[in-house]
Amino acid sequence: MTKTILLAHGSGGEISHELIRDLFVSAFDNAKLSEQGDSAILDDLPAGRVALTTDSYVVKPLIFPGGNIGELAVCGTVNDLAVMGARPLYLTAGFILEEGLDYDMLHNIVASMAATARAAGVQIVTGDTKVVDRGAADGMFINTAGVGVIPPGVDLGPHRIQSDDVILINGTVGDHGMAVMMQREGLAFESALESDTAPLNGLIDDLLEALPGKVHWMRDATRGGLATVLNEWSESAGVGIQLTEADIPVREEVRAACEFLGLDPLYVANEGKVVIAVAAESADRALEILRRHRLGHNAAVIGRVTDAHRHVVLETPYGARRIVQMLTGAQLPRIC
Amino acid sequence: MTKTILLAHGSGGEISHELIRDLFVSAFDNAKLSEQGDSAILDDLPAGRVALTTDSYVVKPLIFPGGNIGELAVCGTVNDLAVMGARPLYLTAGFILEEGLDYDMLHNIVASMAATARAAGVQIVTGDTKVVDRGAADGMFINTAGVGVIPPGVDLGPHRIQSDDVILINGTVGDHGMAVMMQREGLAFESALESDTAPLNGLIDDLLEALPGKVHWMRDATRGGLATVLNEWSESAGVGIQLTEADIPVREEVRAACEFLGLDPLYVANEGKVVIAVAAESADRALEILRRHRLGHNAAVIGRVTDAHRHVVLETPYGARRIVQMLTGAQLPRIC
Repeated sequence: MTKTILLAHGSGGEISHELIRDLFVSAFDNAKLSEQGDSAILDDLPAGRVALTTDSYVVKPLIFPGGNIGELAVCGTVNDLAVMGARPLYLTAGFILEEGLDYDMLHNIVASMAATARAAGVQIVTGDTKVVDRGAADGMFINTAGVGVIPPGVDLGPHRIQSDDVILINGTVGDHGMAVMMQREGLAFESALESDTAPLNGLIDDLLEALPGKVHWMRDATRGGLATVLNEWSESAGVGIQLTEADIPVREEVRAACEFLGLDPLYVANEGKVVIAVAAESADRALEILRRHRLGHNAAVIGRVTDAHRHVVLETPYGARRIVQMLTGAQLPRIC
Repeated sequence: MTKTILLAHGSGGEISHELIRDLFVSAFDNAKLSEQGDSAILDDLPAGRVALTTDSYVVKPLIFPGGNIGELAVCGTVNDLAVMGARPLYLTAGFILEEGLDYDMLHNIVASMAATARAAGVQIVTGDTKVVDRGAADGMFINTAGVGVIPPGVDLGPHRIQSDDVILINGTVGDHGMAVMMQREGLAFESALESDTAPLNGLIDDLLEALPGKVHWMRDATRGGLATVLNEWSESAGVGIQLTEADIPVREEVRAACEFLGLDPLYVANEGKVVIAVAAESADRALEILRRHRLGHNAAVIGRVTDAHRHVVLETPYGARRIVQMLTGAQLPRIC
């Protein structure tokens, strides 16, 4: 008989304890979690400003080409810390499981979270499991919160943006969203699409260490895609952004899938892409550093900050210009 | 037309931004949240060890006598920090909303979270909203993670437990679980039951300040109830616990509701109750301090730590003794 998740796994009683011990504590394997207190104690934070973030993950399907909900839940939160200039250190993990969920699938997803956390150099130090009755959730949802420390001297944000700053991205856009969509629509077999889900803290570290003070702002381009990040930048910093369409890296398969589904890759979610504003004089060096990293081989300069207007403006290969608006409506539900 | 939550509210686009600005940022109202970065920056943590915790809340129904899912999500996480001896300071809030959720209900729940956070002296500094399609979640789920700081000198845990330590609780057991159950079963009108949902950090502060070094361990008795906490204590500290049944405060209505549903109040969830082990010589003073606090009027000494065995043993009014086991099976699903 296939082992499945029961309501009793969320009761707080003996079978909850077994699940926590045999599955979570054993996979995530670290001293802070093993203490199983009501809170984990972080008694070894380095000097710097503490950063705190959270995201819930509701991606459908739970497993997709290039990743799964667990890997996503680790990478997404690691990346939200890293783009603030923080070194990600500790994560929490809250699971909402649907009664009847296949135990082996949960086991594999948890194993994948553990491996991703190790690769990113973070520890999952505290967690929670709830089980809801059949039909009250769709398989499983995961929330992670993350704590990191911003080393002294690192200062990123809209206040650092200057006219002529150069905008870079570490690779192709739209991979995650289209991989999930094609899988969900049962079209995965037709495509070689894979999600770009990856922890970006190593790549970002390289950049911040090589170019102290020259990186002005970063964001990971998740829900809403590149277009949404740049619109948020334009609004918060009160500047314009000039993009060159031909310079924005998009895989041919992603472009084709987007055309098929009537989507614009600029609005499609990424889970391993960071948008970076650097001082103009450091742009070449930044590009070189990104391209040297495993997660930045396709890095590119895609645009520039300008004082000439306050929009995100895309210059097409034919010399036309169009304003890239903020995403309106729900383009791709449950993409992360 | 009634305003409801749409899939687009979770898209990351313009309507997501509106929801965040008009609902969450405006209700939770603090400078760190207003920055709306990928992470909140906690640049003002006091000296001490940082504590980190998380819980997801899936209670059904969303609103129950004495509380709602939002109030619960703040109190539960505040209490998980407070029982570690930490001063709760910052919370994250992750919302998973079902398409079609009534906007006014969400608004009221968020307002209640904000009020509870203010009352507990914590700030909700970062968050996330996901929307899933109709039928993929049951109304709404909330995850909160919390950061607190354990002041220098505070040291609680199984290693502090000594034989003859006295066990106290700050009031009646089973109120939360029975209030939710009676509401869920449509029996609420027959009872005056109310959840005990409350932030316990103020009461715990009073105790720790008045009795430095004398409080050895604390736990909030949530899922699995008092019986589960004491079994966990017995196991982790390797000691026995002797309880006197007649001393455990239970409201008459709770006792009656438990009998009606065939439940034991010792296993029923509380959301405003802390179990405390104190040095024997400080027990009277601890009881006095608890009773003086609004949330401790019904506080009681309920038992004692012993070396004579390694179980939780209950002495009944008739002098019989029975072992109180860890909860087995799922007594009350979706109680928090």
